[in-house]
Amino acid sequence: MSEAALSTAIGLDLGGTTLTGLLVDATGRILARERRDTPRGRPPEDVLNLMRETAAALIDQAKGLGPAPVGLGPSPVGIGLGVPGPVHAERGISLFSPNLGWRDVDVAGYFHRAFGLPVRVDNDVRVAALGEGWTGAARTFQTYVLLTIGTGIGSGVVLDGRLWRGPGFSAGEIGHIPVRTDPEAPECGCSRRGCLETLASGRAIARDGTAAAARAESPRLAAILNEKGRVSAHDVAEAARAGDGVARRIFDEATDYLASGVATIINLFNPEAVIIGGGVAGAWDLIEPVLSRQVARRAFPPNLAFLKGILPATLGEDAGAVGAAAQILAPTDGAGGDPRGPHQCS
Amino acid sequence: MSEAALSTAIGLDLGGTTLTGLLVDATGRILARERRDTPRGRPPEDVLNLMRETAAALIDQAKGLGPAPVGLGPSPVGIGLGVPGPVHAERGISLFSPNLGWRDVDVAGYFHRAFGLPVRVDNDVRVAALGEGWTGAARTFQTYVLLTIGTGIGSGVVLDGRLWRGPGFSAGEIGHIPVRTDPEAPECGCSRRGCLETLASGRAIARDGTAAAARAESPRLAAILNEKGRVSAHDVAEAARAGDGVARRIFDEATDYLASGVATIINLFNPEAVIIGGGVAGAWDLIEPVLSRQVARRAFPPNLAFLKGILPATLGEDAGAVGAAAQILAPTDGAGGDPRGPHQCS
Repeated sequence: MSEAALSTAIGLDLGGTTLTGLLVDATGRILARERRDTPRGRPPEDVLNLMRETAAALIDQAKGLGPAPVGLGPSPVGIGLGVPGPVHAERGISLFSPNLGWRDVDVAGYFHRAFGLPVRVDNDVRVAALGEGWTGAARTFQTYVLLTIGTGIGSGVVLDGRLWRGPGFSAGEIGHIPVRTDPEAPECGCSRRGCLETLASGRAIARDGTAAAARAESPRLAAILNEKGRVSAHDVAEAARAGDGVARRIFDEATDYLASGVATIINLFNPEAVIIGGGVAGAWDLIEPVLSRQVARRAFPPNLAFLKGILPATLGEDAGAVGAAAQILAPTDGAGGDPRGPHQCS
Repeated sequence: MSEAALSTAIGLDLGGTTLTGLLVDATGRILARERRDTPRGRPPEDVLNLMRETAAALIDQAKGLGPAPVGLGPSPVGIGLGVPGPVHAERGISLFSPNLGWRDVDVAGYFHRAFGLPVRVDNDVRVAALGEGWTGAARTFQTYVLLTIGTGIGSGVVLDGRLWRGPGFSAGEIGHIPVRTDPEAPECGCSRRGCLETLASGRAIARDGTAAAARAESPRLAAILNEKGRVSAHDVAEAARAGDGVARRIFDEATDYLASGVATIINLFNPEAVIIGGGVAGAWDLIEPVLSRQVARRAFPPNLAFLKGILPATLGEDAGAVGAAAQILAPTDGAGGDPRGPHQCS
């Protein structure tokens, strides 16, 4: 095998619904993939065990022991992980993850004990930003922000090739910047009102679509509500594409708020590019024209002139796991110090 | 002289109305000060000449030749400058300064030719941020943002002890983040509507105070308008302190918008502190209670919990010139490379 000399690593991305594991080589190529459903309502050990089994399955594949015909390459040189919520990236500890019920979970310690390999852990959106920077939409940029628009809205900020995590590991909380300050602004899960993610996330679009359906403003959305009991952001996008004016207005309003968030990012960070990822970015055809126009209206002209693009993410659901592996194979992100490895644990 | 061994540097801060020059020692102590009015409507050479004369007067004082009893210390080891608008900090070139009518003015080259000393140049708000970090309100912080609220609103962003300028040298344009998106939002000098500085700057407060006076909503403000032909932000602050409800409402509304800007900074950068400077910060007694309360309502709870304070700047009008000198004497700001010096010009 001519490429047998390339190092490989395991990347694991623990999402709210899916655990994605990848075997990745030093060029960012995906050699093997494992997916599992993320267990719900289970203690941290159960989730960590499933992640360990997923990593072990990928290591077996790397050795040629698994079902996929990878084999015979060198063993993976490390394990990178992305998990939701704030992560102490230098120590590899998940500080807090409300959806998982985690607090101060020593992910790096667990994986290092299990495999004896170097381990790196960071927040899921940040590793996705690393992934898009390594082999995705941001690969030609040194300073960019990945905005992920799904149920919530998150961002990963890369400045001069290094992740900016903040000294409290909670920088980039774009989902919670205030974009509406009136008392009627919708309430956010963070207990505040008018946060960007209450107005521009998939959940916001679904909420407005469901409300419009309940008010019978759109026969199409009303039929979906009647049939399924709820309207999803995907339903609203489909209806907008089919020419439903109410659905289109809901999508455009959300995109309009998103444009304020993107303009704020452009003005404050002066990035070369803003990358839009997450489930809602699948409606890029609907988002792009409104987003471009409204960002052009809102961003500061010199910063806008400097910007090279507002681009859709290209790695899709693999971005997090690719970036998780990048922490091991392309560690230019300034995490500070070496990955958790034998020198710390022996 | 026991402190004769301390290095000194010249710091020059070119403001819209005042040119401040300081002779500063390596501990940040101010040894001598020169102030001039900034010339208006004059070609760049005239302004540069006045800056050169100001630097020369300070160097004379350092040598004991000037009027102030400084003297006998070592000659200044370099010259640091702060000028309005975007600056190519690595090359020391003012890229664009609309108020001065500057474009691509080689400030570092001019000063290096004039004095043969190392020269560093950056944007005026950024050097003020360095000044507050060196000896002012931010001196115990590594990650902080200085917000200056004067005629406009600017910010200097320091991350892990280094200025974040952005690859286009226009990061931190907080004055132009969109905080009102309705079509009636006031128009900004940048050609956009609803920018933070149209709602929370000294100019915004003066505009609203003048309008309220013209509508005779406040007898006190109306009397000021009648007497002086306009109402300043300072007038509005004084009236608010004297119990004028209309003036108080204007100030509180501006502070409310400011709180959105501060919350956005806290959420995106995860700083240890936000420092408020500029002329309007002189009304800290009026600003502080409303700002604290509204930021607490708007910022993301984990980032707010991490924040050590929202503090008034302490160096006042000297901040820019102190920070300009800090570029030479405390150059931990990651400008990249050495100051413009003999190795580039010989």
